[in-house]
Amino acid sequence: MRLIEPLARWHVLDEVFSDGARIAAMLAFESALARAEARVGVIPQAAADAIGRQCAARSFDHAALARDAARAGNVAIPLVDRLRERLTETDSAAAPYVHWGATSQDVLDTSLVLLLRTALERVDEEMQHLAEVLAGLTERHRATLTVGRTLMQQAAPTTFGLKAAGWLDAVTRHRERLKELRPRLIVLQFGGAVGNLAALGDRGLDVAQALGAELRLPVPDIPWHAQRDRLADTAAFAAIGTGILAKIARDLSLLGQTEVGEVSEPFTPGRGSSSTMPQKRNPVAAATVLAAASRAPGLLAAMLAAMPQEGERGLGGLLVDWETLPELVALYGGALHHLTRAVAELDIDAPRMRANLEASLGLVFAEAVRVGLTAKLGTAAVGLVVAACNRARAEKRHLHDVLADDPALKDQVTGDELRALFDPLRSLGTGSRFIDRVLSRRAKD
Amino acid sequence: MRLIEPLARWHVLDEVFSDGARIAAMLAFESALARAEARVGVIPQAAADAIGRQCAARSFDHAALARDAARAGNVAIPLVDRLRERLTETDSAAAPYVHWGATSQDVLDTSLVLLLRTALERVDEEMQHLAEVLAGLTERHRATLTVGRTLMQQAAPTTFGLKAAGWLDAVTRHRERLKELRPRLIVLQFGGAVGNLAALGDRGLDVAQALGAELRLPVPDIPWHAQRDRLADTAAFAAIGTGILAKIARDLSLLGQTEVGEVSEPFTPGRGSSSTMPQKRNPVAAATVLAAASRAPGLLAAMLAAMPQEGERGLGGLLVDWETLPELVALYGGALHHLTRAVAELDIDAPRMRANLEASLGLVFAEAVRVGLTAKLGTAAVGLVVAACNRARAEKRHLHDVLADDPALKDQVTGDELRALFDPLRSLGTGSRFIDRVLSRRAKD
Amino acid sequence: MRLIEPLARWHVLDEVFSDGARIAAMLAFESALARAEARVGVIPQAAADAIGRQCAARSFDHAALARDAARAGNVAIPLVDRLRERLTETDSAAAPYVHWGATSQDVLDTSLVLLLRTALERVDEEMQHLAEVLAGLTERHRATLTVGRTLMQQAAPTTFGLKAAGWLDAVTRHRERLKELRPRLIVLQFGGAVGNLAALGDRGLDVAQALGAELRLPVPDIPWHAQRDRLADTAAFAAIGTGILAKIARDLSLLGQTEVGEVSEPFTPGRGSSSTMPQKRNPVAAATVLAAASRAPGLLAAMLAAMPQEGERGLGGLLVDWETLPELVALYGGALHHLTRAVAELDIDAPRMRANLEASLGLVFAEAVRVGLTAKLGTAAVGLVVAACNRARAEKRHLHDVLADDPALKDQVTGDELRALFDPLRSLGTGSRFIDRVLSRRAKD
Amino acid sequence: MRLIEPLARWHVLDEVFSDGARIAAMLAFESALARAEARVGVIPQAAADAIGRQCAARSFDHAALARDAARAGNVAIPLVDRLRERLTETDSAAAPYVHWGATSQDVLDTSLVLLLRTALERVDEEMQHLAEVLAGLTERHRATLTVGRTLMQQAAPTTFGLKAAGWLDAVTRHRERLKELRPRLIVLQFGGAVGNLAALGDRGLDVAQALGAELRLPVPDIPWHAQRDRLADTAAFAAIGTGILAKIARDLSLLGQTEVGEVSEPFTPGRGSSSTMPQKRNPVAAATVLAAASRAPGLLAAMLAAMPQEGERGLGGLLVDWETLPELVALYGGALHHLTRAVAELDIDAPRMRANLEASLGLVFAEAVRVGLTAKLGTAAVGLVVAACNRARAEKRHLHDVLADDPALKDQVTGDELRALFDPLRSLGTGSRFIDRVLSRRAKD
Repeated sequence: MRLIEPLARWHVLDEVFSDGARIAAMLAFESALARAEARVGVIPQAAADAIGRQCAARSFDHAALARDAARAGNVAIPLVDRLRERLTETDSAAAPYVHWGATSQDVLDTSLVLLLRTALERVDEEMQHLAEVLAGLTERHRATLTVGRTLMQQAAPTTFGLKAAGWLDAVTRHRERLKELRPRLIVLQFGGAVGNLAALGDRGLDVAQALGAELRLPVPDIPWHAQRDRLADTAAFAAIGTGILAKIARDLSLLGQTEVGEVSEPFTPGRGSSSTMPQKRNPVAAATVLAAASRAPGLLAAMLAAMPQEGERGLGGLLVDWETLPELVALYGGALHHLTRAVAELDIDAPRMRANLEASLGLVFAEAVRVGLTAKLGTAAVGLVVAACNRARAEKRHLHDVLADDPALKDQVTGDELRALFDPLRSLGTGSRFIDRVLSRRAKD
Repeated sequence: MRLIEPLARWHVLDEVFSDGARIAAMLAFESALARAEARVGVIPQAAADAIGRQCAARSFDHAALARDAARAGNVAIPLVDRLRERLTETDSAAAPYVHWGATSQDVLDTSLVLLLRTALERVDEEMQHLAEVLAGLTERHRATLTVGRTLMQQAAPTTFGLKAAGWLDAVTRHRERLKELRPRLIVLQFGGAVGNLAALGDRGLDVAQALGAELRLPVPDIPWHAQRDRLADTAAFAAIGTGILAKIARDLSLLGQTEVGEVSEPFTPGRGSSSTMPQKRNPVAAATVLAAASRAPGLLAAMLAAMPQEGERGLGGLLVDWETLPELVALYGGALHHLTRAVAELDIDAPRMRANLEASLGLVFAEAVRVGLTAKLGTAAVGLVVAACNRARAEKRHLHDVLADDPALKDQVTGDELRALFDPLRSLGTGSRFIDRVLSRRAKD
Repeated sequence: MRLIEPLARWHVLDEVFSDGARIAAMLAFESALARAEARVGVIPQAAADAIGRQCAARSFDHAALARDAARAGNVAIPLVDRLRERLTETDSAAAPYVHWGATSQDVLDTSLVLLLRTALERVDEEMQHLAEVLAGLTERHRATLTVGRTLMQQAAPTTFGLKAAGWLDAVTRHRERLKELRPRLIVLQFGGAVGNLAALGDRGLDVAQALGAELRLPVPDIPWHAQRDRLADTAAFAAIGTGILAKIARDLSLLGQTEVGEVSEPFTPGRGSSSTMPQKRNPVAAATVLAAASRAPGLLAAMLAAMPQEGERGLGGLLVDWETLPELVALYGGALHHLTRAVAELDIDAPRMRANLEASLGLVFAEAVRVGLTAKLGTAAVGLVVAACNRARAEKRHLHDVLADDPALKDQVTGDELRALFDPLRSLGTGSRFIDRVLSRRAKD
Repeated sequence: MRLIEPLARWHVLDEVFSDGARIAAMLAFESALARAEARVGVIPQAAADAIGRQCAARSFDHAALARDAARAGNVAIPLVDRLRERLTETDSAAAPYVHWGATSQDVLDTSLVLLLRTALERVDEEMQHLAEVLAGLTERHRATLTVGRTLMQQAAPTTFGLKAAGWLDAVTRHRERLKELRPRLIVLQFGGAVGNLAALGDRGLDVAQALGAELRLPVPDIPWHAQRDRLADTAAFAAIGTGILAKIARDLSLLGQTEVGEVSEPFTPGRGSSSTMPQKRNPVAAATVLAAASRAPGLLAAMLAAMPQEGERGLGGLLVDWETLPELVALYGGALHHLTRAVAELDIDAPRMRANLEASLGLVFAEAVRVGLTAKLGTAAVGLVVAACNRARAEKRHLHDVLADDPALKDQVTGDELRALFDPLRSLGTGSRFIDRVLSRRAKD
């Protein structure tokens, strides 16, 4: 865990993308390749067995690999070299068959896909968890009255459940995106030096199929070594996901301001404290998610900038992919994990929500009033309500009282009718039906 | 057309997103809304008819709208105001029913969706056209020998058809992405002031359904005014698409260098000329596409940065969406259009490709030689070939001749066997089968 | 003015970067070049006069130029062609001397520098205006008590003047940045085909000096056609400037929320209105600036992505520079202009600020209390104050009252001493001296 | 060193920004603060001594700090807590004076500045080293004839020295940028809870001055906790620097292509090798730098996106600054270091450059021919040369020979005159004088 940003990390994904896990995935590729080639008859079974044994041993020195990788240009080259050295010592007849027909990009790309497969499974589970938590909030607060705000100003009444339903709707949609992404991303990369598996003669496709079977990875129509759209797509998924979470975090941070006070992140000792102010309970999950959302667009931009890779293997672009994509997926995972935990224990102050509805001297009901009076007065109502709003503001009187004094209304609207326009329960429109639709979609999920 | 970057534009999309088309789409919304509300019985049919007549007139002064939009914060507000004024003059009873129950974001978002629907149809047709052109190239050049290059160095033989198949594969995959994107994006936005259609009482969903039917837009589970992932997704589609094209353009620009000379953009008088050098035939389509690819990641980043929008309607973020998304889609469309035209008439120099295969003193066959000799000599072959390559380079002799002189090979490899290792036709591996797979997928498309 | 985003534009910069102004600047280059070459004796004076006359005429058809530019790859090529055609018709002896020794990039880059020179003058004046307005706010409100907020929670007392001083400090610093930037950016680009002015033989430098004198542009050590750091630097200046403004806008939007109500953007009819809610006065300047700040980082990223331009003139990168830099500078200028106008007429509610200081049941004084009690009680004070804060929150009692009841304090702190800790005037520390320093730096500016 | 990207790192900067160095810098702040406060008389000298002793011990458990930081929201909070605990155990009277008057952002920001001060010194030395290497190249190759290329096509003759001078010019200019940046960036951040040093009463500025003296950091006019332009500026410096290097790397990668072969990165065993192709010598330094340049714009965008921080301390933005800025500076440093090493030992093939000048059938001399013939024939020369170029291309004949056969030239141009137009030595223009100017600027540096 890097000291400076522990909040941004989720240990589960840190492990998935750790140096150890990367090496293990590369060795899994080499050993599966040998097995596949033996099965197809391209290399001797004994060689495959020997290679498998050395891969299983996994005792490679990371520091030495890193040192040599800096010279070679990537870590697959020294790893394959060392694997071959091991075999030369123990089973020299098998040594030539290490990495047979493959190129270093095959190892690096396919091992990245293997790690992403695991990472996206964890991410999907956590998204599902967040969806459950949000569905609970939506259901519980479908009738909790609160203020809808537009352009950061009080606008009109709504329910907290409808806010939560909007959040849930985006998360549900993002799970659908993941369903579409996976079959595109989770495939083998195996092309050899320039993508035609030339070193395997006419057995290239057979080996590819066998290798795919070993690793449970479908074989794509053609190697994708120089076409990086699958990775860019995955980066977009993670960045958009972070944006979806950041919308929730932005709302929570606004609702949690001292002067609003409708929602707080859960409090436990030491959480969100200050080094100088004893009263502070800072919204650290929201801070984490918003920080992630400031970083994700730039990381995605880096992935896209790296797409136009030269010829049969790019110069530079690959290094971007291998480093940035795990970083971005981990950032999304971290934001997802920390937000889910905070949302699960959110402290919701319904009375404060109700009180805030009363904080604007009735102006929050102005749309309802306009609509209600237009039904009675026609177009004239609009100017009348605008004037009344301005007067309420200027004289710091309640909009209801200003209107009650308006002679133009006297004969048109009864006191009961006027009061009814200020009843938030009558201003909820289709909210509850929208909630039903969102919850029902999730249930089908 | 902006003077400074005509190359980046495609007139078809410029028209789709023109100011006039935007206004027309907004008026289409207002008129469909009135029809829908009349059908459901929320407003009088006569009012809907009157509103429809004024919307059809379309005679609004753009400069005045722009001026007022600058004060109001968006263009929908003055447009609705003027529409209402018109009706006050012509059918005053209908005036109150203009824009009934809607908010300005409903107009702006839904009209943007309408424009995007058309734009993405045009884009899809152009992608299909590009795919056809690439399929033709792939088929025609499936046996055209050429150099595969990795890290911008000659690497091993391949075919030009396999290069084109890689490009085609990415374009085909991108059309699948569009198929998935469309049903998510092409939906109605209709939520009223804070997303619960409060002004329509219990008829909100009925109006929404009728409005969706009028505009041929499905009604989503819940309004998405504050959840911008659909737009971010569309931006990602356009940016990734631009990256896919830029990979092709990067390759074309490299293959078209004077010293490589394998491929040129089509030449017509005035195209790619220079103001000072009479001989120049600059690759202007590649330049356009690469310029677009430098800009697209940043535009996508802007869309993602705008995702965390505040409460029931964001502050600032909406302005980003409405401006940046059409810009990015138009950028992708422009790149697509200009590249398609250039690729359709590409000038391909097969003899030069073949000649370039001979430009490396046989080093481009080193992998084939290593594989071939390993079959004979085992691990020892690797060091032997590396040494021979170094010697060929140092002495500027052909790798074949260096090896022919190597005493270690004398008894192991015949002259014919050695010569065969330098035959590019024997180094094409699975290339042709990969081509078949890619063409067959496209055919099913 | 583009219809969709009038708010983001400042007409002054729109004119500076208009198509007409671009053409005029290019013609200014061509005419100055001819004069310079005549003075140095490279071309006949009569030719220079004839060229000057045609440039002055300025009657070129923009649409035709745009059409031809799309073929040629940039607009300088058709412009020079047409200028030459004109001269062929009117002064055919002068025709060969049009654009003599220059290349199209010389025209495009130098004309861009000329436009940027004007634009940055306008921007500097507007920054100065903003600084004045902020200095006024700072001075007037140096003693206006208000709440300091950290992580969007009430933190401790401060003054509104100190907030404004922080904004001013950043603007003052940004003007210094501009002073440093200008001499680097505002220079001639003149290098000919590949940057060595080969066509001018041994007179290249003399012509460059004379041309620079004509255009009042210093001649750099070497042409910078392929080194784009000056433009990237300018983009960074504009993007950082936008970020500085967005910090102000973010603060204004937070301070202007209905529940906070401390500051509002000026109100005039039609400004910040809503199409459905009669009471709305939306903070449109803040929205504009925050939208600009969402877009600027991506535009800057595009400029940086275009830096690694190939060889003696890049492929694609130039198109990015010519389009994106004016867009980014105009975005900054627009944000600057609209924010300056709003800040100049800000509506400040000092009583509300004071009232908000009382909204936290005294928790906003917790740091002052901790410091004050530590002086009396040592380390023990920290735990005691934390406990009192928690109790105040739980029991909804004022922190002062909770502490007044604490037996541990009874003998240590008098009632007056305790009350004094809740006096915001005693919690302003160095604020006023920081204000003096900031105002004094600006005065020297 | 992270396994996946050793090439992108420079161990010198990795150490500067290591977790250990960060903790040490934070402790240096706390201990300097105590000394400063004792000197000013705000805390007892004995307390300062005790705090200094515990800071010097430096024996904090990183893993535990990281764990607690994840709860608190930043690492300064648990570090200060633990420091206070230590003192409670050893010198309890001193414990309350730990971190007296400061807030966690003061520690984090100032310690970041301390690390950046060191990092930028290392960076400047390496930039100086690169400038020396480039100056050597420029001087040595001022007369080395080579091809100038525009839009990736052969354009006109130039010298390799002039190419190197362009690279050097940008590096020299970037060192000037650093000189301007440093006094702005390298300053103290010390503001307490909300930026007014309230906890220090009227001694805030005295303590700040003494603290600045201890850390050799000037005291800015006002704390900058919420104004992040200094950090954004530093990020822009690093990103622009990476772009400058990437221009060099792009050129090297193009010049090093097999078909161009003018320049190669130095070769040592294992460097730039391939896991499958024995002949490969990949340009790994160029790959590293280009990868950094794909990532830097996005990291810079993240820094800018984080600028609009809320109120007296932002939510989320700070986490971006503390993480991303070191990452970006380290990326620049890594690119700088690896490129400098490669350029220092570049393998330059002057005969190949000369040969490439001959590869275009004389078309590379077309501008010189056009200029030379215009002097003789006037405007008519242009069309004549274009036609000759087209014919040379179509008939694969040398441009000289085509022209020699042209009857229109027969009487106007002698054979010697025509041959002279194809002499590259006569097409170098002002190149050498530009070189002098660039070298002389650097010498003054």
